[in-house]
Amino acid sequence: MADVPMYETVAWAKKSAADKFEKITIKRNLPGDDDVTFDLKYCGICHTDVHIANNDMGNTHYPCVPGHELAGIVSAVGKNVTKYKVGDKVGVGCISDSCMDCACCKDGDEHFCANGFTMTYDYDIKHGHMATDSGYSYGGYSASQTVNQRYLIKIPDDYPLEKAGPIFCAAITMYSPLAHWKVKEGGKKVGIIGIGGLGQFGVRLAKAMGNEVYAISTSPNKEAAAKQAGADNFVVSTDADSMKSAENSMDLILNTVSASHQLAHYLPLLKKDGTLVQLGLVLTDHQVQQFPLMMKRVSIAGSLIGGMPETQECMDFCAKNNIVPDTKVVKADELESVYEALSQKNDSIIRYVLDISASQ
Amino acid sequence: MADVPMYETVAWAKKSAADKFEKITIKRNLPGDDDVTFDLKYCGICHTDVHIANNDMGNTHYPCVPGHELAGIVSAVGKNVTKYKVGDKVGVGCISDSCMDCACCKDGDEHFCANGFTMTYDYDIKHGHMATDSGYSYGGYSASQTVNQRYLIKIPDDYPLEKAGPIFCAAITMYSPLAHWKVKEGGKKVGIIGIGGLGQFGVRLAKAMGNEVYAISTSPNKEAAAKQAGADNFVVSTDADSMKSAENSMDLILNTVSASHQLAHYLPLLKKDGTLVQLGLVLTDHQVQQFPLMMKRVSIAGSLIGGMPETQECMDFCAKNNIVPDTKVVKADELESVYEALSQKNDSIIRYVLDISASQ
Repeated sequence: MADVPMYETVAWAKKSAADKFEKITIKRNLPGDDDVTFDLKYCGICHTDVHIANNDMGNTHYPCVPGHELAGIVSAVGKNVTKYKVGDKVGVGCISDSCMDCACCKDGDEHFCANGFTMTYDYDIKHGHMATDSGYSYGGYSASQTVNQRYLIKIPDDYPLEKAGPIFCAAITMYSPLAHWKVKEGGKKVGIIGIGGLGQFGVRLAKAMGNEVYAISTSPNKEAAAKQAGADNFVVSTDADSMKSAENSMDLILNTVSASHQLAHYLPLLKKDGTLVQLGLVLTDHQVQQFPLMMKRVSIAGSLIGGMPETQECMDFCAKNNIVPDTKVVKADELESVYEALSQKNDSIIRYVLDISASQ
Repeated sequence: MADVPMYETVAWAKKSAADKFEKITIKRNLPGDDDVTFDLKYCGICHTDVHIANNDMGNTHYPCVPGHELAGIVSAVGKNVTKYKVGDKVGVGCISDSCMDCACCKDGDEHFCANGFTMTYDYDIKHGHMATDSGYSYGGYSASQTVNQRYLIKIPDDYPLEKAGPIFCAAITMYSPLAHWKVKEGGKKVGIIGIGGLGQFGVRLAKAMGNEVYAISTSPNKEAAAKQAGADNFVVSTDADSMKSAENSMDLILNTVSASHQLAHYLPLLKKDGTLVQLGLVLTDHQVQQFPLMMKRVSIAGSLIGGMPETQECMDFCAKNNIVPDTKVVKADELESVYEALSQKNDSIIRYVLDISASQ
């Protein structure tokens, strides 16, 4: 797809880990027959953006345009596009392309694409359904984006556009394991460890599905926020009595903690056959004791965002159940201070959202 | 149950970790209305026996009579016992009592009894359905045993009595996770790590259920035994090419390795949504990388023997499918040399079985 026609648009990029964000011009492909181009209005700022922009994994491409919580308005559609029309509210999450051909893609599990899905930013473009001038993907800190219609999410008309971005990253990260481990129909007991950006969605989603929700945190001062989000119970994970009172109660626990720890600490909270799902970006090994796994046949699993059909389902569920994140809208010249805040103990339930129009 | 009438029987015990086995006299309860007494004919010798008899966990009661793979002939039944009659072939495994009242017991999951099941040896007797002169349980290196009928397994008439004991420990340890993780109906791909006493049953059971079986071992010289047991494929876990050739293939892996290791080593073998089940007696922590769990939504779980109904199901399945362990029958005066052999690298598929009649 190297020779496809391109257009220029504005983006906010870091040219190196040490540089500040600056406004640059990038090129993306004009919409092909199956593509949609949209004017970006907002882009959520995820903690992952900070890691990548700062080259924490050591393989970032520069200039780096982060952002995988895109929300905007359709400006052009290819001739094969039937689901979207100019003026529609749409979004893009972490996935901008995949092989479309493996068993996972065919199942709508694009996030498990056997050939590797193309992340929305800082990822080599290889599946041939999109293009940029650099050959790697540019994210949503930008005025316009083009993707194959498969990777778009329809944002319901009555959902606030500036709140939608976090649905495609934080909310789907919580929604997918709730759906996969069968608590979507309610009536179960669900624990959410960590009441931050991910955890708030976990509490709201699990509650809206009809479950009894335990918010679990090291900080007793998170109780008010957790209860406000809908938690029925609050467990202080550093308090032995509090942990004891919740023993053997939960069918499923979603663990959003992004640090290496002894996972067995949480296993007593599970019922027989319960599952602890790991969701945080943890690069160092965990310690796991084997006996607690055996004595109640419990599982430790992982989960990663969700596929496109499930992300749409999550968006529609949030709209129907009025699940709306607490956000703070910022402009591009505030990115440095937002990144600084996210680099500190990142346990706020506020999701920062970049206002693209106001930044230009 | 302290004042129940008792009878005397012979047993082989260690009086301390340092002592050799010697023949002693112990007392067990005479059969109550719901109990069955049977003459022990054979008792399998499990690696766990070595750990307990040698006080490896530091809390062994002495004199210690090990053995939880009991097989014998009914000699007396209580008046409420309808399922068994004098002369029947019966066995007892790891469970000799439980509360009978918790949700797990009511479900036939006595191995997960919320109040703790009573292990067949070296365990405080507390549920009131059995008694010994010491207050803790004596195992199957003994001429007679009495248990509540609930904890007995019926051994089919055509199954060799000296081969039955290992069914109640090694075979059920493998059968239960195969049943729980839904490969009992066949058509799946199942890996078995470690081709020893547990692993041989895993291969035979998974194959008899109609699955494609991968035997996984550090030792290339296990291939013949694995293939003879029914393995379709053999993977050398220390050979990168061999591991690579089996990537993303398995729905379920049963890991019998009894040592701490990096569990992520085996995760590439699993398909999306696959499960690695830990079965070995491992006392130190494992290391677990989080990313491999997330990238295919795979799980690490534990499993522990099985409940009484499932153990009977396992016995019947083995009889029907001619699954018979390779055993070597020994007498009590050979116990020291057998324990020495088991204390070495314990990767033989031979299960040692104590011949009770020949030992007296």
